[in-house]
Amino acid sequence: MIRVGILHGAGYVGRKLIEQVLIHPEMALDSVTSRSHENQPLWKAHAHLRGATDVVFSSELGSSVELVFVAAGHGQGARAVGELRDAGFSGLVVDMSADFRLPDAVMYLERYGNPHPRPDLLETAWYGMPEITGAPPKNTLLIANPGCFASAISLALHPLAKAGVTSHVSVMALTGASGSGAQAKDTTHFPSRNGNVRAYKVFEHQHEAEIDRMAAGLGYSFVPASGPWTDGIWGVAQTNTSVEVGALFEAAYGNKPLIRLWPGQLPELHWSVGSPFTDLGWIQKGNEVVIGFAIDNLMKGAATQAIQNVNLALGFPETLGLLP
Amino acid sequence: MIRVGILHGAGYVGRKLIEQVLIHPEMALDSVTSRSHENQPLWKAHAHLRGATDVVFSSELGSSVELVFVAAGHGQGARAVGELRDAGFSGLVVDMSADFRLPDAVMYLERYGNPHPRPDLLETAWYGMPEITGAPPKNTLLIANPGCFASAISLALHPLAKAGVTSHVSVMALTGASGSGAQAKDTTHFPSRNGNVRAYKVFEHQHEAEIDRMAAGLGYSFVPASGPWTDGIWGVAQTNTSVEVGALFEAAYGNKPLIRLWPGQLPELHWSVGSPFTDLGWIQKGNEVVIGFAIDNLMKGAATQAIQNVNLALGFPETLGLLP
Amino acid sequence: MIRVGILHGAGYVGRKLIEQVLIHPEMALDSVTSRSHENQPLWKAHAHLRGATDVVFSSELGSSVELVFVAAGHGQGARAVGELRDAGFSGLVVDMSADFRLPDAVMYLERYGNPHPRPDLLETAWYGMPEITGAPPKNTLLIANPGCFASAISLALHPLAKAGVTSHVSVMALTGASGSGAQAKDTTHFPSRNGNVRAYKVFEHQHEAEIDRMAAGLGYSFVPASGPWTDGIWGVAQTNTSVEVGALFEAAYGNKPLIRLWPGQLPELHWSVGSPFTDLGWIQKGNEVVIGFAIDNLMKGAATQAIQNVNLALGFPETLGLLP
Amino acid sequence: MIRVGILHGAGYVGRKLIEQVLIHPEMALDSVTSRSHENQPLWKAHAHLRGATDVVFSSELGSSVELVFVAAGHGQGARAVGELRDAGFSGLVVDMSADFRLPDAVMYLERYGNPHPRPDLLETAWYGMPEITGAPPKNTLLIANPGCFASAISLALHPLAKAGVTSHVSVMALTGASGSGAQAKDTTHFPSRNGNVRAYKVFEHQHEAEIDRMAAGLGYSFVPASGPWTDGIWGVAQTNTSVEVGALFEAAYGNKPLIRLWPGQLPELHWSVGSPFTDLGWIQKGNEVVIGFAIDNLMKGAATQAIQNVNLALGFPETLGLLP
Repeated sequence: MIRVGILHGAGYVGRKLIEQVLIHPEMALDSVTSRSHENQPLWKAHAHLRGATDVVFSSELGSSVELVFVAAGHGQGARAVGELRDAGFSGLVVDMSADFRLPDAVMYLERYGNPHPRPDLLETAWYGMPEITGAPPKNTLLIANPGCFASAISLALHPLAKAGVTSHVSVMALTGASGSGAQAKDTTHFPSRNGNVRAYKVFEHQHEAEIDRMAAGLGYSFVPASGPWTDGIWGVAQTNTSVEVGALFEAAYGNKPLIRLWPGQLPELHWSVGSPFTDLGWIQKGNEVVIGFAIDNLMKGAATQAIQNVNLALGFPETLGLLP
Repeated sequence: MIRVGILHGAGYVGRKLIEQVLIHPEMALDSVTSRSHENQPLWKAHAHLRGATDVVFSSELGSSVELVFVAAGHGQGARAVGELRDAGFSGLVVDMSADFRLPDAVMYLERYGNPHPRPDLLETAWYGMPEITGAPPKNTLLIANPGCFASAISLALHPLAKAGVTSHVSVMALTGASGSGAQAKDTTHFPSRNGNVRAYKVFEHQHEAEIDRMAAGLGYSFVPASGPWTDGIWGVAQTNTSVEVGALFEAAYGNKPLIRLWPGQLPELHWSVGSPFTDLGWIQKGNEVVIGFAIDNLMKGAATQAIQNVNLALGFPETLGLLP
Repeated sequence: MIRVGILHGAGYVGRKLIEQVLIHPEMALDSVTSRSHENQPLWKAHAHLRGATDVVFSSELGSSVELVFVAAGHGQGARAVGELRDAGFSGLVVDMSADFRLPDAVMYLERYGNPHPRPDLLETAWYGMPEITGAPPKNTLLIANPGCFASAISLALHPLAKAGVTSHVSVMALTGASGSGAQAKDTTHFPSRNGNVRAYKVFEHQHEAEIDRMAAGLGYSFVPASGPWTDGIWGVAQTNTSVEVGALFEAAYGNKPLIRLWPGQLPELHWSVGSPFTDLGWIQKGNEVVIGFAIDNLMKGAATQAIQNVNLALGFPETLGLLP
Repeated sequence: MIRVGILHGAGYVGRKLIEQVLIHPEMALDSVTSRSHENQPLWKAHAHLRGATDVVFSSELGSSVELVFVAAGHGQGARAVGELRDAGFSGLVVDMSADFRLPDAVMYLERYGNPHPRPDLLETAWYGMPEITGAPPKNTLLIANPGCFASAISLALHPLAKAGVTSHVSVMALTGASGSGAQAKDTTHFPSRNGNVRAYKVFEHQHEAEIDRMAAGLGYSFVPASGPWTDGIWGVAQTNTSVEVGALFEAAYGNKPLIRLWPGQLPELHWSVGSPFTDLGWIQKGNEVVIGFAIDNLMKGAATQAIQNVNLALGFPETLGLLP
């Protein structure tokens, strides 16, 4: 059993990581840190976990931890990873923040507007989207876990990009409120969110930097929006092309255990909520093409993709602890 | 005061028509028919109206009715209008169904799959989308009230079509559950609808026949979907063009009292829910263009557009009874 | 037309007051103040009102204002009323806060924990729950508008209290998220509120001070809870008595235009949402009794009760501007 | 590994049973029947399960099945159990319907209004609410799994009944829409359910027959209602007593692994949704007492209580397969 620590585990990503670690047959939850909940049992932040674990939030990870998930906010992730390394931790680290998702500090500054906190660690990071980037190379010690929108949209666009599709692709995707984190915000105020849809960061969502890497060469525009539900991302990518897109998806993902393909239909949001799967479907009528995609933003968009990456990095079966 | 009758007023469109007629300063609600609720007060179908009106559902319209809204289902609308005419009613009729929205019986058969029930009346019908088709000509006696998706999308695309935009437009729109009517269906079963998004009739929604008329010449693809809310349509139209779309919208709708333009942003769904307004916004970044649109499917998508049409047909101010 | 001013009109109570004043046939909206939105059109805070009014938020009420609604928070209400009086305003004021709902400063201190900001004005205030306290006396210049839970529960319990029912009454009521106001809070964070029910202030809700006045002598316990919807209060009062409660309700409210009685059934929440009505129903089976109640917390629980009070104070019909 | 069959597995209870069996370390899912989905993979009814199991709906259970869950509707459950016995199946059967929850056919007729379909099997049934009725006796072959409201309310009232509390208890509980099953109904039509609360079967819910057994001697009244969410039951039991209820709950359930006690507070609905736990809390202020309770209606209210019963019947740890 690998002893697992989670840094900053009082938020939503931390919560899902705790749940996944608890059910993983080769992982043991060693310690979870939180400044706001120090010395309180995990269920003070995650009430539903009472009775399922006796772990107590601590200020530091345990000394015997072998694998660390960093669930800090963007900008904080790199600092936390840096402190781990500075303190001599030499085990595998999975950073859930955006900090190690771009390959160099120049691009980071350009896309996020602030200098990278720990550029020295950038070259040690592996961007882990298993169905596209494959298993991490041997001895990988830092995995940058992809963004939620980035995961869904990259998986939807990658086959088109790889095939050299030249038509412009219009992407529209909606996310649930858990994507905004555990802190109350104007945009997640129930009277404002319930029964509402709101576009935001149109043509300038920060996840485009990741999508640009995973769907290099493809011309696309992305309109993100927030929808009135808690968990899940659902969206469509529309284009006009004579390329038979179904064949591209079958070729790219036909043998991937955590991608489900739905030829001739678009997946419903519900299907993937609560699961580690990415659902991808398509409808083509003459040159009219739409690709539908759906994931759980906290699962494939965060915690289960992290587990998937760790499974591959450590030589476990890709789906270990993710499927019954 | 014009005496108003509503045929088949126990459904959601009927409910909104009743509400609008009750607050209209030049209309008096004379009679409302319903087979399922005959001889029951209106509030047996529409509980919130108890105390606001004493009208009782009847089997026939009152003999002094001067204006009739037909809120029957598709296919039933034409029959009901025909029976009114056969019975000698010579006043203004507004048909809320799809039956008189297309200009000829051949197109009707092609698009809806069944022969038109009353082709003799087709040429008496006026398709009433005031911001595009203007006021009905004098002596119009039959108004075909547009579909809900058709209203929102036509108003979003019409300026592009008029300007001869040649780039393909990708349209994605979501509708609330009240668009499915008052009868329970699998797709409106709460556990299936809540927290879910589902695409349906992709590239083949029947409202495309109307959009084709209002945005003639424009190349577009339409992905309709259902969202987890009760009222409202929200969507986006994306394209790639160097045409400055803001100028097109200002020119087309700058002086329309029931269209609100939002340059540089996309409207939220909430803003138009419960109102007679159409909200249209746009963002353009280089050649990337997105137009956002939102309406209340039972208001601009049904009842208030009907009132707007009647106001224009009868020479009232366009917004009479629609704004405070 | 009476010229109306609204102090602190950028919140939810302010929004509903604006809407109600705009449709009231004897009221003209003169001015609305807001510190956060000064010099912005009303629709910057209330987007759906764009196109319905051209009023702009100001820092001060207009000098010709004849009637003022004070929509400030608790504690701020008394200060704002005091400043109006100090500045010489001698017209009717309706305070929406809790500050003038209790008859004396001692009780205020005891219930709310802070000294009353303007005890000098307490004796000028009239607690306006028309169906219980009747029309304000001639020359009333300050109306204390009741709390939302207080309105619903007082109307449900008053007939029992008046009849001297001695059995203990268990009250359980749920409120929507708009009752928490327009500021985002942990308890209105969408992921926490959606699909959840949470009790709060059990046996110690501050509205009990009002209920104690309106249902004096009755023994009851009150468990408040928050539910996953935006607008509306729904609840039940259960007791064990042989008194025929139906007769009590018919006697108390049979001729009240804004109370709807539902013998033999409990009202649904939906029926009163968006309306000025209070719905009251009851079921009695032997000695088992349950009374169901429902109101819109921002309508009967705030704005429309305020209009109802003003109508009575100024000699208008009680329902003017409230019913079509 | 015990080979498990599920009769009528296309509904919501069947779905949860499938999920629980798939993750249970000592159970293997052998076969699932469905008339409507015969020969289709399970994911045709339960899309989210695609990729998690290859089982196909069949018309008959497999011949090597050792344990059967019957997820048929009320009235159908007894027939299905009878057919299993008539066909010679001698293994353990868990009936999820109401058919074997009452001890005799007279009571069944009286409460449900129709004669019991298989009275010969009644005496072989064990009503399995482990925290009250304990482990099934050795060689139990038929377990009647309790109703969802019955589970939550019985666990909330049992300690009071056992202690001989004499004050009348007012119970109010709300359930989500999944409690109505997978078939669309008027009461689960999204526009009617969303944002609504509706009481039903007031003082005459069929689960009272079960509660009467588990809280024998206690005087209570029960108002059931439906709330606008998918999963979960939340409610309160109020009474007036000087008995210290906290001590009763600690004594009754202090050592139960699937009951969580919350002294001084009432549980939120969210905490138990998706979990096998029953949450019970209480607040006592003088003689005012409220007990709050919450469960997932498809978990403790159906599938996980069934697993809990089977674990006890077969000698496994009570929580096997239920906790991580």
